[in-house]
Amino acid sequence: MNSYVIGIDIGGTKLATVVADKDGNILQKVRKPTESEKGPNHAVQLLLGMVNEVLDLGGLRREDISGIGVSCGGPLDTKTGIIYSPPNLPGWDALPLKEMIESEFHIPTIIENDANASALAEARFGGGRGYDYVLYMTMSTGIGGGIVANGEIYHGANDCAGEVGHQILLPDGPLCGCGQHGCLEALCSGPSIARRAQEATANQPETRILALADGQIDRVRSEHVLQAARDGDALAIALVEKTAYYMGWGIANLVNILNPQIVLLVTIAVAAGDLLLDPIRRTVTEMAMQRPREAVKIMPAELGDSIGDLAAISLVIGN
Amino acid sequence: MNSYVIGIDIGGTKLATVVADKDGNILQKVRKPTESEKGPNHAVQLLLGMVNEVLDLGGLRREDISGIGVSCGGPLDTKTGIIYSPPNLPGWDALPLKEMIESEFHIPTIIENDANASALAEARFGGGRGYDYVLYMTMSTGIGGGIVANGEIYHGANDCAGEVGHQILLPDGPLCGCGQHGCLEALCSGPSIARRAQEATANQPETRILALADGQIDRVRSEHVLQAARDGDALAIALVEKTAYYMGWGIANLVNILNPQIVLLVTIAVAAGDLLLDPIRRTVTEMAMQRPREAVKIMPAELGDSIGDLAAISLVIGN
Repeated sequence: MNSYVIGIDIGGTKLATVVADKDGNILQKVRKPTESEKGPNHAVQLLLGMVNEVLDLGGLRREDISGIGVSCGGPLDTKTGIIYSPPNLPGWDALPLKEMIESEFHIPTIIENDANASALAEARFGGGRGYDYVLYMTMSTGIGGGIVANGEIYHGANDCAGEVGHQILLPDGPLCGCGQHGCLEALCSGPSIARRAQEATANQPETRILALADGQIDRVRSEHVLQAARDGDALAIALVEKTAYYMGWGIANLVNILNPQIVLLVTIAVAAGDLLLDPIRRTVTEMAMQRPREAVKIMPAELGDSIGDLAAISLVIGN
Repeated sequence: MNSYVIGIDIGGTKLATVVADKDGNILQKVRKPTESEKGPNHAVQLLLGMVNEVLDLGGLRREDISGIGVSCGGPLDTKTGIIYSPPNLPGWDALPLKEMIESEFHIPTIIENDANASALAEARFGGGRGYDYVLYMTMSTGIGGGIVANGEIYHGANDCAGEVGHQILLPDGPLCGCGQHGCLEALCSGPSIARRAQEATANQPETRILALADGQIDRVRSEHVLQAARDGDALAIALVEKTAYYMGWGIANLVNILNPQIVLLVTIAVAAGDLLLDPIRRTVTEMAMQRPREAVKIMPAELGDSIGDLAAISLVIGN
């Protein structure tokens, strides 16, 4: 009776293992700090122990588990299960994680990048339930994405599909972390919003944004911009509108290319709600083609903090 | 023994029906002008007769045919098989083409837009053979596209996926046929290349482009630009480079979003060959992310004039 699954969520600061039933109900969970400075072998040994812990907590044996799903920062190769130097996991260079887990537990293991796994979780358990074509977009330190079509992750040639934050909108625009200029990420990520706000604040020191950042320009963050906009600050409202314009432009392109039924936005878009979503929707309506635009909804993602666990188990729960 | 298939290729000026075996070998073909000004019923009656004709020519009966594939300009609904007012087929408004064909022949019929059907044909029989993720892009009067993943067309919510020519690159750029400004199509289609050449030629009347157009600016077409570039004309070379830059920028975005193994370009890109493809490849190398860029080849499509027939039969031939 292998009626249960295990999920492993690997982040740069936290590790989590969960055991769940086949309906996606999380039964037990163990969390530990990644201590990424101690390198990959330390973290993997921790994880293997945490899998045993969560099994013990659930009163389950290895034979009860049909699969292990692992959600981890990319790049990685889903076929071989090898991790290739994610920025948040120093030293995880060509780490054969799937093999390491399978040789320990003899349970089929699927490794997936966190954006894709989260997209699948939203498609199965969250805001994408009931939709055949789901586009999931993160909007925080970076802008990433995952494409789910008919219940399956769209991987692309080498597991890179869904890098929606690196469509270039302004080739002469601000530098992006990827080395290009004017990517959607360089225009709409949290740090990008903060940078634009810092530049604007220098000329308008009376803005409420600056007051919220204790009067210090270098402390201005995207949250201050959103709060100041809610408080009616004109500069903050203009900055939110600008961000929504770029985000809407990028999403309009994606709507034309991918024709999703639903675009699910997380993090900043969830925190900001309609303050950001309404002008994004307006821009998409203005810039996307009529037929694909009529077919799409733009909504906040639904799973919140539980997404990491559900992302991991989504990989090994059948439809 | 239903070992044969029928393909129907519907264009604004020409209709074709073919019968093929299950390996994709075209056995017989019938062609007639669409006479689109006579409306959809005239054309459909012609087509039904042409199906019978091609069956007769092949010495086949209806029972020998396992499926009918129809490649037609979109928009259309692949589930219902209804055609919704393609620009090149006036009066084809909510035309239930699948139902009309099936009620006549009692053979399962699949209707698909021509860009998607052509993408599938290239993936099965042409330059995309052996690749799991194929992106096909037309580059002629307009810029369209089709996405094939693991041998299947990626349709999207309402059969609009692959409108790659309508990603917006320059919102303040030239007007596009879709009503937006600065779409890839408005920058790189044949008429867009001609328009840019006409504008530039007005200030540089000594260019070879103008000589090739009999000295008349309003006769300048994209072919003249390509020929003049081959002849070493500096203005023409600059125009080709500019076109390749926009095309490469758009493809780089698509490489990041879709992570194809191969991008197949047709029409102008085939005619121009490396004159256009080399600078396009250079721009993609400069603008796309490293991992997806390393996984992709950018090549001319292979099927040439036979694509219409193969597009139609691809829809009803198994893998």
